[in-house]
Amino acid sequence: MDTNEQQILKSWAINAERWTRVVQQKLLDSRVLVTDNAIVKAVVELKPQTFLDIGCGEGWLCRELWERGFDGWGVDAIAQMVETALGNGDERFVVSSYRDLPLQSFGSIKQFDCFICNFSVLGENTVFEIAQAGQSLLEPNGKIIIQTLHPHIACGELPYENGWRETSWLGIGDEEFHPAPWYFRTVSSWIEEFHRRNYRLLKLIEPIHPKTNSPASILFIFEQQ
Amino acid sequence: MDTNEQQILKSWAINAERWTRVVQQKLLDSRVLVTDNAIVKAVVELKPQTFLDIGCGEGWLCRELWERGFDGWGVDAIAQMVETALGNGDERFVVSSYRDLPLQSFGSIKQFDCFICNFSVLGENTVFEIAQAGQSLLEPNGKIIIQTLHPHIACGELPYENGWRETSWLGIGDEEFHPAPWYFRTVSSWIEEFHRRNYRLLKLIEPIHPKTNSPASILFIFEQQ
Repeated sequence: MDTNEQQILKSWAINAERWTRVVQQKLLDSRVLVTDNAIVKAVVELKPQTFLDIGCGEGWLCRELWERGFDGWGVDAIAQMVETALGNGDERFVVSSYRDLPLQSFGSIKQFDCFICNFSVLGENTVFEIAQAGQSLLEPNGKIIIQTLHPHIACGELPYENGWRETSWLGIGDEEFHPAPWYFRTVSSWIEEFHRRNYRLLKLIEPIHPKTNSPASILFIFEQQ
Repeated sequence: MDTNEQQILKSWAINAERWTRVVQQKLLDSRVLVTDNAIVKAVVELKPQTFLDIGCGEGWLCRELWERGFDGWGVDAIAQMVETALGNGDERFVVSSYRDLPLQSFGSIKQFDCFICNFSVLGENTVFEIAQAGQSLLEPNGKIIIQTLHPHIACGELPYENGWRETSWLGIGDEEFHPAPWYFRTVSSWIEEFHRRNYRLLKLIEPIHPKTNSPASILFIFEQQ
């Protein structure tokens, strides 16, 4: 039987094509209105010389950042996503699980100024794997930028505590998605997990959705100590 | 006409006696079940040699901490609160506005290991005044522990943005309170205000209310850099 972590990879492999359509045809309101801009703005304000977009999907964020003059790479665990990304002509994409990141090569870049995880920290162990990868792949005082569902909004009527949940695919056009689990974390747990691994919170951002006046997501920027 | 900040002091002066009754007769469920323990636990884990309880009210928290062997003082802007606190026999209470804290004497203690603000950061400028007081009154790497209403719970149906609100006195026995304004801050704003003033978030705690399974409050522990 698959673990939840394996199930995530399997589901996203099945969903890769549909998800690419959602991103490229801009079918997800919250992304178009709020969260795409929020992640780009957070990176731009940090002015990293180099970035690693972890869980890059079909690569839109890398292309946005390259256009703005930042150098960096995209990485995704799903081969088909990376294939689509490479199809746009730039070679700076690679397939890798998060755990194997330290084993990969990224052209001439040995260490990055920042990691970017845009709605791509989905598992329970993922936090550990990313923090761990930062030990070798981040420059001193390197940053990790994470955008994710806002725990207080995503919590819904369930108890506000860490645990596995099922992804809601509501509001994503007419696409049918394969069910994918994800690991819910409280705000305090997100911060604690990185603090105990030698990172410290630099900034917390709650971009507001103009239609609901509630946070559309949350961004954590951690700095390696 | 009073500013909101002045109105807070006026209201709490009027409410002092009633509030003392709420605390001493344990009329507020969330305090008894969750938040009293949460603040004591946060302080105990930090093991400060000395503390300053800012907005100490009738002094219960000081007494709890003294009993556990921590040395410290209580301060409140409302004279009647401090009078009640002094009535219990210990002299380590003083009346002071938050802005005037650096002008006060606290026996032999010149600098504190930590400030404690337990539901006592109510105004818009209060954050600034406390951060400012820390410049002279905190030891190097001193901590500020703040417990307050959890923004995501307290927000209710209003837009999730900073601004003045009216205190809800619901659920506090049969007591009638004078209306008191308070300044609502988002989670990101709490953190940003201290980060821009040379403090960094050390820990964020969300104590869960056993009846609602939602956070009963939020605690921020900031460290001076």
